[in-house]
Amino acid sequence: MNRVHNFSAGPAILPVEVLEKATEGLLEYQNKGRSIAEMSHRSAEYEAIDQQAKTRLTELLGLGDDFEIMFLQGGASSQFMMTPYNFLREDQTADYIDTGRWSNKAIKEAKLFGNVHRPYSSSDTGYDRVPGDDELELSANPVYVHFTSNNTVAGTQFATDPETNGVPLVCDASSDFLSKPIDVSKYGIIYAGAQKNVGPAGVTIVIIRKDFLAQADTENVPTILQYQTHAEKIFNTPPVFNVYMVNLVLEWIQEKGGLSYFKKYNQEKAALVYDEIDRDDFYRGAVQKDSRSLMNVTFRLPSEELEQQFLEEAEKIDLYTLKGHRSVGGIRASIYNACPRESVETLVNFMADFRSNNG
Amino acid sequence: MNRVHNFSAGPAILPVEVLEKATEGLLEYQNKGRSIAEMSHRSAEYEAIDQQAKTRLTELLGLGDDFEIMFLQGGASSQFMMTPYNFLREDQTADYIDTGRWSNKAIKEAKLFGNVHRPYSSSDTGYDRVPGDDELELSANPVYVHFTSNNTVAGTQFATDPETNGVPLVCDASSDFLSKPIDVSKYGIIYAGAQKNVGPAGVTIVIIRKDFLAQADTENVPTILQYQTHAEKIFNTPPVFNVYMVNLVLEWIQEKGGLSYFKKYNQEKAALVYDEIDRDDFYRGAVQKDSRSLMNVTFRLPSEELEQQFLEEAEKIDLYTLKGHRSVGGIRASIYNACPRESVETLVNFMADFRSNNG
Repeated sequence: MNRVHNFSAGPAILPVEVLEKATEGLLEYQNKGRSIAEMSHRSAEYEAIDQQAKTRLTELLGLGDDFEIMFLQGGASSQFMMTPYNFLREDQTADYIDTGRWSNKAIKEAKLFGNVHRPYSSSDTGYDRVPGDDELELSANPVYVHFTSNNTVAGTQFATDPETNGVPLVCDASSDFLSKPIDVSKYGIIYAGAQKNVGPAGVTIVIIRKDFLAQADTENVPTILQYQTHAEKIFNTPPVFNVYMVNLVLEWIQEKGGLSYFKKYNQEKAALVYDEIDRDDFYRGAVQKDSRSLMNVTFRLPSEELEQQFLEEAEKIDLYTLKGHRSVGGIRASIYNACPRESVETLVNFMADFRSNNG
Repeated sequence: MNRVHNFSAGPAILPVEVLEKATEGLLEYQNKGRSIAEMSHRSAEYEAIDQQAKTRLTELLGLGDDFEIMFLQGGASSQFMMTPYNFLREDQTADYIDTGRWSNKAIKEAKLFGNVHRPYSSSDTGYDRVPGDDELELSANPVYVHFTSNNTVAGTQFATDPETNGVPLVCDASSDFLSKPIDVSKYGIIYAGAQKNVGPAGVTIVIIRKDFLAQADTENVPTILQYQTHAEKIFNTPPVFNVYMVNLVLEWIQEKGGLSYFKKYNQEKAALVYDEIDRDDFYRGAVQKDSRSLMNVTFRLPSEELEQQFLEEAEKIDLYTLKGHRSVGGIRASIYNACPRESVETLVNFMADFRSNNG
C-alpha cells in the first residue's frame, strides 16, 4: 500500500503498525476463532484489554491511584453536557476559559445547569491566542475551571496547564491528549475523544480525580450520565473494537518512548512547519506566536485563490486534508503523534517549492 | 482460520464476509492510501457511507420519507434516558411494558422525567412471557408506549408489534433489529445498539417518525441529547469505522434477501433448537412457548451441575458462550442473523449427544 500524507484534523492518521495489528484482531483475536469485535464486553479477553489500557494510561500520565479512568462514548460534545450535569448546581459558578469554537460549545451546555463566568476570552481578536496565567480573572468561588488545551480550529494551544490557585481544572484535551506530559495534580477531569491522538472515533477517554468525583451529583442525573456509574464498573456495552484499538495505540506510544518522547518529537515536527512559515511574508501564521499549536499548524497564503491552488497541488503529491476548518478558511496541517516526520518534511519541501513558484 | 461456533449474546457474531471486507477497509479504504478509520466524518467518503447505510435501512424496513435515521452512540442505555428527556414532561405519563431487566432499566430513567405506567408486567412469573394485545392495560393518555421487542436475559420476544390504538410505539429493538419485517407505521421511535444484529458495539441506530419528532422538547435538553440535533445533520464526530461496518452488514442483509429472508431463516434455526428442547423432559425451555425468542434460546438442564458440564463439554467442540445471563443462570444460545445454520445444527447434535450420555 502507498500511504498518503494524511493531515486530517480528525478522525486523524493512526500509526500504520497499529492498523496492521488491528486488522489481525478484527479477523481473529489471539487465535480464538473469532474477531475481537465478536466478543462480549464481559469476556475475560475484553476485560484484560480494558485493564491493560487503563494501566498504560496510568503509567503514561503518572496518575497514581487517586484517579478513575473510564472509556465512554459520545465524544467531547457529550462531556460538554456531562461535566456540568454532574458538578455544576443551579446556584454555583464554573469558569470557562474561552479560546474558540469548542470552548463556546462547552459554555453553551454548562449554562443549562448553572452560572458560567469567562475568566478570559480571545474572541475580540478572532481567537488568535490563549491566555497567560496573569490574564485569568477567575470568579470568587468557581466549582472548576474549564479549558480547551488545544484549539483545532484556530490552531492555538496552552503551552502549560493554567494556574488556578487550587481550583480543579476540567480539560477538554481531545486534540492534544498524550502529546506531551502534563501536571495531573491540577486536574479534576481530563477528557478526550480518541480520534486525534489515541485511536479511532467512537471512544472518549475520561479521567477523574477521585476526590473531585466524590462531589458529583448522584441524585438527579440519569444513570448513564453519572460519572460515578462508570467509575464503579463497565456499566453498559463499551465500543469493544475501538477500545481494543486505543490499547494498541497506547502500547505504540509506550514503545516509542512515552510522553516525553512525543513532546520532543511534536516540537520538532511543528518547528519545521513554523520555520517555513516564518521564512518570509509569503506564508502567514494564523495565530500569535506564543500561542501556536504543536498539533494543528494554521496559516494563510497571500490570497484565497493561492490557498485553493496550494491545496490542489498538494494533493497531487499525496499531501491530503490540509484545508482549514470551514469556519475560518486557510490551511491547517494537523500533525498529531502519529503523523510521521517524513510527512511533515514532505509538506515543508512542498511549501518551499510552492513559494518559489508563486511568491 | 478455524471459526468457532459463537453464541455470544452481544457483542455477537458478525458475518465472516463482513469481517473480511472490513479488514481491507481498516488497512486501506478504496485504494486511497489510508484507512477508513483515518478519514474525517466530513469527508466525501464518509458522507457516502452514512447516506448509503441510511438508504439501505430505508429499503430494508420500508420506511418512506417520514422517518429520520441517525447513528448515535451510547447504546440502548443512553436511549433509556434520551427518549423521556425529549418526549416525557413532568405532568405526562408514558406507558412501559415490563418484560424484564432491560424494560426496568428504561423505566428507571423515564421516572426521572415524568410519570410511568406499566400496562403489563410479567415480573410475577419471572418474566417468562410477553403480553398478548388483550392483556395491555394502557393509561388514559400516554405520550408513547415503550416495549423491549426481544428480551435477551429471559429469552422472550414479541411475535408481533403490540397494539396501542394509535399511541406511538417506542421500541428498544436492540436484540432483534432487522431480524424480521415490522409494521413501521406503528412506531414513533425504534432504537437499537448495533452489537447484536447489525455491527460492532459502539453505534446505536435510532429511527424516529418525523411527526413524532416534532413534539420533542428543544428548550431544556442539552444539545447532544436532543434528537432534533442529530436529525438536522451529522452533529459531532460519529464512530466512523463502526458505521462503516454497519453499512457492510446492511449490504450483507440485502444481498441475502432482506428481512423476509431472515425471518424465515431465524424461524428455522430457532425451531431446530426448540424441537430438541421439547423432545423430552431432559431440557426445559426457560419461558412460555408462545413467548419464545427466535434470537436468544434459553433453557435449563436437570441440575446446575449438568449445566456446568454441558458448557464445558460444548467448548471442547468449539461451541462458545452458551452460558445464560448471570442474573438467571442456565443455558442461552444467541442465534442472531449472522449465526449460521451450521452452528445451530452443531449445537443441536451436541444437545442430543449430551442427553444420551447424561439423561
